[in-house]
Amino acid sequence: MTETMQLDYKKLLGKVKDLLVFQSAEFIIHWDMETMMPPKAIKLRSQQFALLSRIEHKMSTNPEMGTLLDRIMRNPKYDKLNEIQKRNIYLIKKNYDEQTKLPEELVAEIAKQRAITVDIWKKAKAAKNFSVFKPELEKLTELQKKAAEILMKVKETATPYDALIDIYEPKMTAETINKVFNELREGLISILKKCQAAQKQPDMRVLKHKIPIETQRQIAKALAEAVGYDVTSKEAGGRIDETEHPFTSGFYDDVRITTHYYENSFTSSIFSVLHEAGHAIYEQNLNPEWMYQPVGTACSSGLHESQSRFIENIIGRSREFWIYFLPKLKKIANKTLKDVELDHFVHAINHVKPSKIRVEADEVTYGLHIIIRFNIERDLLADKITVKELPEIWNQKYKEYLGIRIDNDSEGVMQDTHWASGAYGYFPTYALGNIYSGQILATMEKYLPHWRQQLLKGNFKNVKEWLVKNVHSRGNLYDPADLTRKITKEKLGVKPYLNYLNDKYSKLYDF
Amino acid sequence: MTETMQLDYKKLLGKVKDLLVFQSAEFIIHWDMETMMPPKAIKLRSQQFALLSRIEHKMSTNPEMGTLLDRIMRNPKYDKLNEIQKRNIYLIKKNYDEQTKLPEELVAEIAKQRAITVDIWKKAKAAKNFSVFKPELEKLTELQKKAAEILMKVKETATPYDALIDIYEPKMTAETINKVFNELREGLISILKKCQAAQKQPDMRVLKHKIPIETQRQIAKALAEAVGYDVTSKEAGGRIDETEHPFTSGFYDDVRITTHYYENSFTSSIFSVLHEAGHAIYEQNLNPEWMYQPVGTACSSGLHESQSRFIENIIGRSREFWIYFLPKLKKIANKTLKDVELDHFVHAINHVKPSKIRVEADEVTYGLHIIIRFNIERDLLADKITVKELPEIWNQKYKEYLGIRIDNDSEGVMQDTHWASGAYGYFPTYALGNIYSGQILATMEKYLPHWRQQLLKGNFKNVKEWLVKNVHSRGNLYDPADLTRKITKEKLGVKPYLNYLNDKYSKLYDF
Repeated sequence: MTETMQLDYKKLLGKVKDLLVFQSAEFIIHWDMETMMPPKAIKLRSQQFALLSRIEHKMSTNPEMGTLLDRIMRNPKYDKLNEIQKRNIYLIKKNYDEQTKLPEELVAEIAKQRAITVDIWKKAKAAKNFSVFKPELEKLTELQKKAAEILMKVKETATPYDALIDIYEPKMTAETINKVFNELREGLISILKKCQAAQKQPDMRVLKHKIPIETQRQIAKALAEAVGYDVTSKEAGGRIDETEHPFTSGFYDDVRITTHYYENSFTSSIFSVLHEAGHAIYEQNLNPEWMYQPVGTACSSGLHESQSRFIENIIGRSREFWIYFLPKLKKIANKTLKDVELDHFVHAINHVKPSKIRVEADEVTYGLHIIIRFNIERDLLADKITVKELPEIWNQKYKEYLGIRIDNDSEGVMQDTHWASGAYGYFPTYALGNIYSGQILATMEKYLPHWRQQLLKGNFKNVKEWLVKNVHSRGNLYDPADLTRKITKEKLGVKPYLNYLNDKYSKLYDF
Repeated sequence: MTETMQLDYKKLLGKVKDLLVFQSAEFIIHWDMETMMPPKAIKLRSQQFALLSRIEHKMSTNPEMGTLLDRIMRNPKYDKLNEIQKRNIYLIKKNYDEQTKLPEELVAEIAKQRAITVDIWKKAKAAKNFSVFKPELEKLTELQKKAAEILMKVKETATPYDALIDIYEPKMTAETINKVFNELREGLISILKKCQAAQKQPDMRVLKHKIPIETQRQIAKALAEAVGYDVTSKEAGGRIDETEHPFTSGFYDDVRITTHYYENSFTSSIFSVLHEAGHAIYEQNLNPEWMYQPVGTACSSGLHESQSRFIENIIGRSREFWIYFLPKLKKIANKTLKDVELDHFVHAINHVKPSKIRVEADEVTYGLHIIIRFNIERDLLADKITVKELPEIWNQKYKEYLGIRIDNDSEGVMQDTHWASGAYGYFPTYALGNIYSGQILATMEKYLPHWRQQLLKGNFKNVKEWLVKNVHSRGNLYDPADLTRKITKEKLGVKPYLNYLNDKYSKLYDF
């Protein structure tokens, strides 16, 4: 590197470090709001968020950053930069261009309308009344379309919707998603039908045991530690708290998860803890040498979801995991679960049954919930349907895909917060995560053929190390499609995931 | 107001609002560090603090603020501003002048040296080894002297030490403090001697009952609510958490306190909760119309301490409070305290006995601990003594004032964190708080002659309302000396406080 370029690069990275550190402080404020904040503080908290996001926007659009980027990229020695440095420059420039091209007023307007729409959504959901929600969602959707059209030009995507997808899953397109989702749907429906037709069905009573919250808290800690997310040691970099909706927050040495304990449904927190622990392990095992650099952040929402699903489902709902963990669970729960039998339990936690609510869906039907949402939001952003028509189309698709009748919009189109928050383009990443997790599993099995035998002895070390090496520690060095190809030597495809499901459910349901 | 001045004033207040909101976000990050943060996150947290304080410093020295201040103060219609507006301008200008006059490098150097000194202090204290601490404390002291000399010019104080006192207790001087402390010392020593000579002595066994931590948590909540600090309702603006050293953090609708529970010393958390609740009630009852304005902040450290001491001692160690609260305490503690007798208990919690450690001192000897520290730091800042001599002088004064022999520096000169943090000028505010609380009490008794009879029935409402009206809601409208005079119609004086002590302890000790 020439002396000037070195200095410019160092300066640029200093500014980006500030931005990342600032965001990590915002994480804390947000986490506090969800977990600890006294109720009266909500107005003050919204003032804090407004100010912090104004400061963050100023930092990310600082013209000095543009000048430094320009100077570095026009330097004749630019090609001498290594892969990591070039990736940093690429990611910084991408973010800078997007942030500076969006007019400040539009950003502010969206933020304001988002707050209004989320607020109204909560009320409308409680009142089971879509018509109250509709006008505000219309406004927010129009604003998001405006933003999408601007981003489409910056990102050079084929459609505005693709520009929104790119926020969560860089370089992914609706066309590619549509292709894999069509295959996925076929595969899922076929497995679903076989499960439904099977003679062998699980006995769900095994999940109805009442477990006190305090006991569930101990179970949560034991689970987190079983999969390598440390929350109790003297050097722990994580913790588990309680919120209505579970989430993961933070990066590197401060990654916190939340869960919700239901006395009458102890497996609810078990699987939300495993899911969030999967997210947390990803964030904790990013490359420490790249902390405070864009390459040192997670790759995409889809890859993130691949890791949470891997821990929750591939590990956490496997027979092998429960060979190891059921005796521990029984010990912590004292006598309550003493008669629970391994195979009954494993079948029950893998019960396949169409349902209304996405977050409660099993592994097989979950993808169908996502495909419905993807098809609807794609058509909405392409002006093929309107906000007004959403409930009707929603209900019709639930009938068609899942054979389910939706009686009211609170259990239908208003069940999730994503659209109310304007997060169009996010939903497909959930199913992409499942698809990635299948491809990652198939590859891992080549390198660790005995992983299931190790798991049943409680040895999760090799699996974790393999995931860290191949997924987590690579951070954001590649776009998701490239990372997946690096790991699996294959392009995006649903076969491995469907094979995994077929294999697992044919054993469980005996088909 | 002229149109321009109105606009300038509004703009200026907007900038100050940002600063106050930003600081309130920093409170949360700090509170989180002390209460919730996973241990591994400490390095990331120090990066966050460094960045946030850089941003805060930039906000408080923004030249636009200087321009606006100039324009407003030179406006011929300036005198048309009302008292509140003028006070805001005064406080903004004071802070702006001080912040801009201190060179950025010096501020950064002090921050860095402070971190080093606190770290070394912890280690030196654990190792009972002052000589490890000494060189770093010397560096920090030199840096603080430099800052004090600059501030002395800006603030136009008589000595550098006065400039440091002014940070915590605006317009207060070492000369005034010296005068009142001399009187205070005489009075305290006289009461101390009478207590020591008295036949009637408390039976301390009553405080040795073992109370489980979970029970103490319930006691803490009940106490907080008894004095009007709400931590459990749906609209609560506070919460109680656990740290090694108790503290209060936040303002207005988000004010949090911490305490430390010792199973074998249940009154420790009782009085730290009452103390911090006193601080919290002050912050919660600042004038809501002035939220986000300098007038809407607390008056001074001394006034703050007057409120915490008022709740902890004047209320919380009074016989009347325990007539009301002892039955409640017994109920929460189930059978453990059933034989505790009111007068034994009240005498035991007011046991007067010279001791080594300030934070464990009783009401009578507490002031002597402070006077020792004041005399030492005043002489240190005036170059009359050196850091090297601190242990010897410390031990000598403890012998002289309290008749106590200090065996090692961890229980002596290294017991408190204040000097390690460079907070010279802070200690005297503790005893000033006691003096103010005596004056405030004497005045309150004129308006609420039956307050003790009300208290014994659990009616604390009138006292709280009186304090809110006369102290809390006046925020920072006056400097502490002026506020005290507004409330009491008297200037600073120790008589009311000594009268209160004499009256109380002559009854307890029968002298």
